[in-house]
Amino acid sequence: MTDHRPPEPPEAPPPPHTTHWPALPLLAWGRDYDRETFAHDAIAALIVTLMLIPQSLAYAQLAGLPPEVGLYASVAPLLAYALFGSSRALAVGPVAVVSLMTATAIGDLAPAGSPAYVSAALVLALLSGVMLLAMGLLRLGVLAHFLSHPVISGFVSASALLIAFSQLATLLGVQGGGHDLVGMLATLWPRLPHSHPTTLAVGVVTIAFLLWARSRLKPLLQRWRVGPRLADAISRAAPVAAIAVTTALTWTLDWPAAGMKVVGAIPPGLPPLTLPAWDPALWQSLALPALLISVVGFVESVSVGQTLAAKRRQRIEPDQELIALGASNLAAAFSGGYPVTGGFSRSIVNFDAGARTPAAGVFTAAGILLATLLLTPALYFLPRATLAATIVVAVLSLVDVGMLRRTWAYSRSDFIAVAATLLATLALGVETGLVVGVSVSLALHLWRSSRPHIAVVGLVPGTEHFRNVQRHDVRTSPQLLTLRVDGSLFFANARVLEDCVNDGVASHPELRHLVLQCSAINHIDASALESLEAIHARLRDAGVRLHLSEVKGPVMDRLQHTAFLRDLSGQVFLTQFQAVEALAPELLHGAAGAR
Amino acid sequence: MTDHRPPEPPEAPPPPHTTHWPALPLLAWGRDYDRETFAHDAIAALIVTLMLIPQSLAYAQLAGLPPEVGLYASVAPLLAYALFGSSRALAVGPVAVVSLMTATAIGDLAPAGSPAYVSAALVLALLSGVMLLAMGLLRLGVLAHFLSHPVISGFVSASALLIAFSQLATLLGVQGGGHDLVGMLATLWPRLPHSHPTTLAVGVVTIAFLLWARSRLKPLLQRWRVGPRLADAISRAAPVAAIAVTTALTWTLDWPAAGMKVVGAIPPGLPPLTLPAWDPALWQSLALPALLISVVGFVESVSVGQTLAAKRRQRIEPDQELIALGASNLAAAFSGGYPVTGGFSRSIVNFDAGARTPAAGVFTAAGILLATLLLTPALYFLPRATLAATIVVAVLSLVDVGMLRRTWAYSRSDFIAVAATLLATLALGVETGLVVGVSVSLALHLWRSSRPHIAVVGLVPGTEHFRNVQRHDVRTSPQLLTLRVDGSLFFANARVLEDCVNDGVASHPELRHLVLQCSAINHIDASALESLEAIHARLRDAGVRLHLSEVKGPVMDRLQHTAFLRDLSGQVFLTQFQAVEALAPELLHGAAGAR
Repeated sequence: MTDHRPPEPPEAPPPPHTTHWPALPLLAWGRDYDRETFAHDAIAALIVTLMLIPQSLAYAQLAGLPPEVGLYASVAPLLAYALFGSSRALAVGPVAVVSLMTATAIGDLAPAGSPAYVSAALVLALLSGVMLLAMGLLRLGVLAHFLSHPVISGFVSASALLIAFSQLATLLGVQGGGHDLVGMLATLWPRLPHSHPTTLAVGVVTIAFLLWARSRLKPLLQRWRVGPRLADAISRAAPVAAIAVTTALTWTLDWPAAGMKVVGAIPPGLPPLTLPAWDPALWQSLALPALLISVVGFVESVSVGQTLAAKRRQRIEPDQELIALGASNLAAAFSGGYPVTGGFSRSIVNFDAGARTPAAGVFTAAGILLATLLLTPALYFLPRATLAATIVVAVLSLVDVGMLRRTWAYSRSDFIAVAATLLATLALGVETGLVVGVSVSLALHLWRSSRPHIAVVGLVPGTEHFRNVQRHDVRTSPQLLTLRVDGSLFFANARVLEDCVNDGVASHPELRHLVLQCSAINHIDASALESLEAIHARLRDAGVRLHLSEVKGPVMDRLQHTAFLRDLSGQVFLTQFQAVEALAPELLHGAAGAR
Repeated sequence: MTDHRPPEPPEAPPPPHTTHWPALPLLAWGRDYDRETFAHDAIAALIVTLMLIPQSLAYAQLAGLPPEVGLYASVAPLLAYALFGSSRALAVGPVAVVSLMTATAIGDLAPAGSPAYVSAALVLALLSGVMLLAMGLLRLGVLAHFLSHPVISGFVSASALLIAFSQLATLLGVQGGGHDLVGMLATLWPRLPHSHPTTLAVGVVTIAFLLWARSRLKPLLQRWRVGPRLADAISRAAPVAAIAVTTALTWTLDWPAAGMKVVGAIPPGLPPLTLPAWDPALWQSLALPALLISVVGFVESVSVGQTLAAKRRQRIEPDQELIALGASNLAAAFSGGYPVTGGFSRSIVNFDAGARTPAAGVFTAAGILLATLLLTPALYFLPRATLAATIVVAVLSLVDVGMLRRTWAYSRSDFIAVAATLLATLALGVETGLVVGVSVSLALHLWRSSRPHIAVVGLVPGTEHFRNVQRHDVRTSPQLLTLRVDGSLFFANARVLEDCVNDGVASHPELRHLVLQCSAINHIDASALESLEAIHARLRDAGVRLHLSEVKGPVMDRLQHTAFLRDLSGQVFLTQFQAVEALAPELLHGAAGAR
């Protein structure tokens, strides 16, 4: 789904980040703001505004909220991000996945669109804002790494499928419902006979037009000698054209009288000042959804932000991003909006259209504000099916089928993580799906690290190197066994080493020395230390001395004060070669003789 | 709490395990059973029986069950273990921690001692038996390793404190309650004025006597020229003496008339045949407690079993142990018992008394059966305070204070795991405490592995070795940067490598080649592969070629088919030395010139 364009032509590099954290990045880019930057930002803002108007209406519909809530969520949050954000091209506002998560979170609390529902969305934005802000101040941006790529990928693909499926009801002109595939199907199935043919026709034609515009319109315009930038802008505005045409047709032909559902009256005017309700029970029931929304929103936002920053050799600060997204969601909570984050496609458009600074976001907010003040009467006859078509086309590009294939080819355990996340999200809804995905990926990681690779190694003749006896032609001694442990030792894998040593001792009757080559051990936890003590005691009873070699500095520092090292029957060698020189010198002579 | 005695004098080694798994180990040891082995087993059984009678009564009281349930749980389960168990010295039966967990699990379902309560204990034993059996057949014995030593240690110490505290009420002659420290105190506090002085006196004197007997009786007897084995047996029987004396006093002085609580009527006769109730709601609510009891019981049993087996150079099979403990708990469920496992102190006594085969368990069961048939009338006047005193003295030896100090000295993060388990168990009860402990230890492990050590390395002059530039005097080149990654790459740490490479590139303006020395990388998951691709793309944009060196066989096999390796701008070197020979030969000449 990423646009792999060549990087922008080299420009004067922006001044380095000189402010301290947490900061107002505005101070960095505001200082050098000039007329040329303004021109770039303004053009990008115009294109993003044209894209954002239909998106904000559509995603509000997806979230089960009145259309104006989507518009409100596209004003104040953008200003907040411009003030605090560290990405120069991120376009904040309502996004598809977070809208679906909002619908899931508050769907069971109140009927969609009711005042209680709208009020719950405000609370969700408030909680999400507070959590993001707190994570930012605690510098927990690093936690985003605990969502593995397969989990994110499976989650986004499954959410996109759920979103597309959720729009089927609107495309058919009936009432939908449900938060997972089975629930949606169970709601939709009995209502299929009540489908509204004109609505369906509008939806299908709009989808076909949007898909055509996405892939064919730009080349066509370029063949007609339209400049590439303008051609790009025109093809990006296809959803606006679809809205204009279907709205005009609906008005002219009076389709609402024939039963077609339209957006209806949108109260014109500025975003209202709203105060999220103080209701402890509601807050408690929304806490977990708010956390999941925060994490997903942050990950989506940071990954697009980092992709775009890297293209211009800039950096974004994850902790600063948390603060900026927290501020954006608080702004949404107090101005009649709902949870927002940095959108993927919208940010790429913003970047490609030439946005240089977050001021582009300020101009976009101004554009949406203007639309809220002036355009709302014109949107009365906008068919809901047109918005559903916009959503379907937008989210289908998020479904990444190739990822399943690639992951399968590379690693079965990563594939299990993708597949589990995908299926759990489809079958159980977004919240459970995400929790399942994270749990599965953590469990798989733990499972893998509980089975360390332990190799018996021998000397490569004529060198000072040691290699796995099973893969290389190396020299070994019946009285000396060297085990190389390929990983840190901790509670879940220490027992494997014990078993390995027991087997080694049993299969080497002449054994006098056992060396643990510790070159790949970065940490030994207390459980593993107890296992080493057990190994040591058992070897001593069997008349075998235990030695260590190539122990890393930090590990040695820690072992220094333990009873294990004090009582060690053998020595600690700096290199494995020195261990062989001391314990089995015949290996060296033999090698020299063989040459 | 382990008895660190010198190993037994060498005997004829037992025949090796020749049976296949899952097996009847009985077939292995039964074949060579002779009169001498019988004599050893019978003596051990006598001593364990004398120890087990008071323990089974006391632990049943701790679990809130009638005393006969403890006796029943000490008959059939022992026979089942003798049939299936792979440890030759393990003594199965009621144990302190599992009894406390039983009380916690069923305490809120019915009043202690009521028929519904007894019936719930049977269901708990059934579920626990089925789970253990299933884990054994699935060969999941390895899962026990996911309980780290600090977690087990903290959990056992905290449970022991909780158990001792829970007996305060009985020692004071009032009604107790609560499953955590605060709950117990809240129940006990208002009842303190109703304490029963005679009961308290009996309890305190018994505790003092038992403590004295434990530490002083054996040396005293030996000074009186009693043989060490007999002296040991006599001091082990101190609880029996305490029971006999306090029961006789209570009967003679008619203390129950003055309000002292006694054991009362125990129905004499064989253990009944019981059928656990089929009640889906009850089963569901007991499923999680049964799982926790299974895991804790298994871990306690296996750790003592392994300790004892190692002393005689025998092995126990964890998966076979799961099956044996599963069978024991099923036997308990169908013979009026409650959850059982291999007890720590009892097994050590069994081992020290000379038990050679599981037949000792069969003789112990016969002894308890005899007691159930004949002794129960004599136990009518046994004061409950005497049993409480037995429990307090038994569990106090499980509190391991030194472990806190040792863990603190060795590793702060392991200390956090101990302390969290300890505090959570004390404050929130055994079930939550165990879950908290496991979660904390997993989170700490994950946190640690998310921060891999990455070192910039250079050539040790005159050798083929490479070492950290910060710790050693090594040669580097401004055009070649080598990073050694000390750990596998996976989703939670791949970003750290990206940051490290970015910093390296930024601080080396003349950089042409970056080598990742992969000697400590055992696995690269799909997320980390994407990070490597991102690093590669960014380096290519900056005109730096990316090379790999010392990639392990399994990692290379996996990379072989990826786009990353196909498009790699640099080479893959077998050794880091070859990388330097090819990319920065001046380092070698320089080194030669310097000599």
